[in-house]
Amino acid sequence: MDTRINRQWLLARRPRGMVSADDFQWIEVPTPELSDGQALLRNLYLSCDPAQRAWMARDSYVPAVKLGEVMRSGGIGEVVKSRHHEFEPGQLVWGVLGWQDFAIISPGPSSMISPLLPGVPVEANLSVLGLNGLTAYFGLLEIGRPQPGETVVISAAAGATGSAAGQIALIKGCRVVGIAGGPDKCQYVSELGFHAVIDYKAEDVDARLREMCPKGIDIYFDNVGGHLLDAALSLLAMRGRVILCGAIAQYNDETPPPGPSRYFNLALQRGRMEGFIVLDYYNRAAEAIPDLYRWLTEGKLKYRTDVVHGLENAPTALARLFKGENQGKQVVKVADPSQG
Amino acid sequence: MDTRINRQWLLARRPRGMVSADDFQWIEVPTPELSDGQALLRNLYLSCDPAQRAWMARDSYVPAVKLGEVMRSGGIGEVVKSRHHEFEPGQLVWGVLGWQDFAIISPGPSSMISPLLPGVPVEANLSVLGLNGLTAYFGLLEIGRPQPGETVVISAAAGATGSAAGQIALIKGCRVVGIAGGPDKCQYVSELGFHAVIDYKAEDVDARLREMCPKGIDIYFDNVGGHLLDAALSLLAMRGRVILCGAIAQYNDETPPPGPSRYFNLALQRGRMEGFIVLDYYNRAAEAIPDLYRWLTEGKLKYRTDVVHGLENAPTALARLFKGENQGKQVVKVADPSQG
Repeated sequence: MDTRINRQWLLARRPRGMVSADDFQWIEVPTPELSDGQALLRNLYLSCDPAQRAWMARDSYVPAVKLGEVMRSGGIGEVVKSRHHEFEPGQLVWGVLGWQDFAIISPGPSSMISPLLPGVPVEANLSVLGLNGLTAYFGLLEIGRPQPGETVVISAAAGATGSAAGQIALIKGCRVVGIAGGPDKCQYVSELGFHAVIDYKAEDVDARLREMCPKGIDIYFDNVGGHLLDAALSLLAMRGRVILCGAIAQYNDETPPPGPSRYFNLALQRGRMEGFIVLDYYNRAAEAIPDLYRWLTEGKLKYRTDVVHGLENAPTALARLFKGENQGKQVVKVADPSQG
Repeated sequence: MDTRINRQWLLARRPRGMVSADDFQWIEVPTPELSDGQALLRNLYLSCDPAQRAWMARDSYVPAVKLGEVMRSGGIGEVVKSRHHEFEPGQLVWGVLGWQDFAIISPGPSSMISPLLPGVPVEANLSVLGLNGLTAYFGLLEIGRPQPGETVVISAAAGATGSAAGQIALIKGCRVVGIAGGPDKCQYVSELGFHAVIDYKAEDVDARLREMCPKGIDIYFDNVGGHLLDAALSLLAMRGRVILCGAIAQYNDETPPPGPSRYFNLALQRGRMEGFIVLDYYNRAAEAIPDLYRWLTEGKLKYRTDVVHGLENAPTALARLFKGENQGKQVVKVADPSQG
């Protein structure tokens, strides 16, 4: 029996409205023994993602987290003990580790456990070289199919996925307009080189979009839903594409809000609105990672990380996403690496 | 000066709500002389199409009909006089002829004037071999890309476009479920060989769709919009497609109604919602017509025509579409062919 105490956040109830600490239960339990083929990780960073709200609520593209189960979360851990031939103490890996101090992993073809990329900061593996980067890459390039000179609009443009999608569109020669909330985020989006940025909290989004997209919107990369989706549909260019990546504006709503009343512009403009889930592309990560890695090291793909310290603050950190408080990728720092 | 009197319906005002005779003005004017390269047609049949409501209201994929202009309409006419080398009296042609007794046409590459297909009833050229057939053909096959065994749901399934789309889906080996309003239309859809039909006026559409589509909906061919679109999105199968062909439920609304609140199922199910306008495919009609013609003569593609007699009743005939009163393709019979 391992004598280390494992602190865990269990899902205590299905959320109603905004996620809160009351949706979870804190427990402290012993760390179980390893079986053959397993490894024990000390969690260093946990990734906060809007999709976690859906995992708490209901079965969707993955089964819901069960009540009483450790809250599901991506994260980075350090191997502290291993009975798997490919892992040894000190290694850092990415995986679905959960809100806890220690995770037992059983690496295998379907485990989504992957070693970190060397030569870049650890946190990059949580965002721009992780699921956010893959989401931006495959969503924009496979669903959106951008052409040089096209106008691309990105919502939640300061976020981990939106900022990557916008920068990839810039790399592909597009004119890129970001939408973000508040002066800090808008300032950041400008610094990334977007051609224009609209502060949806302070400006008339419809009027500013019309002004910034005089030839209409060829691609709208939607992380938000709600009114911004309608605003973009209203300005859809001929054969425009709407990439449905997220709908954070409504994840905390109990009943679905009205949908985009301008959806029929898709017919008038011969447009296409298409959704995707990044997990479908996970087995094609090897196509994307070399590009993302190169752009990162060339300074063309920037990111920033918003760190909340302490496992005990994981629920608070997750709620920051839905309140729009995070500046960049929201993570929870649980522990320092032993070699750090 | 031609001494024939030309009776015309002019657009008198932009419609508000349901179209009515008050939106038009009836005038009787002399028929103008022909110039070289023109032909004079006597209109025999006029086609009633939901899109005419949009043409009355505003510029969209084509410019709006101007106030004081003859109401725009497709139709079939007989050449009565010609100063064009390809046309001679007695010929029947399809074209955009307008709500009037006589139309002057200037045939040319962009005029959309086409001779009727021989060996089939004249009315077939207004529906199953006309724009409705092309709409069904390209919408279903190019946007929907049906595979044998897939489940296809068609709204307005008894209508000129819906009934053709459903029958083409049957020909392609799909399981086809139609939605129509009232026992007469549902009976007709059953006779066409659809696997199931749902009466949206009498049945719980959501419950019946769940029952009739146990594996979900692979393709939804939408002519209607409104609640039926949400019902279909709720049951979208993995990688399902929504073909946006029409939204007749809302064409008479002054402000856009709420859009489909279940649109985000497109992301969860990796689905695609795509619109099109049949005019984009007009120059590819030669790909579709041989198939449509063969299926028609083989009895696999049936149609029916709902005839209102008299040019004076054109506004009433158009309104029948939006009230769901028509049984099959709504046309106005203006005159008999001279050889008839």
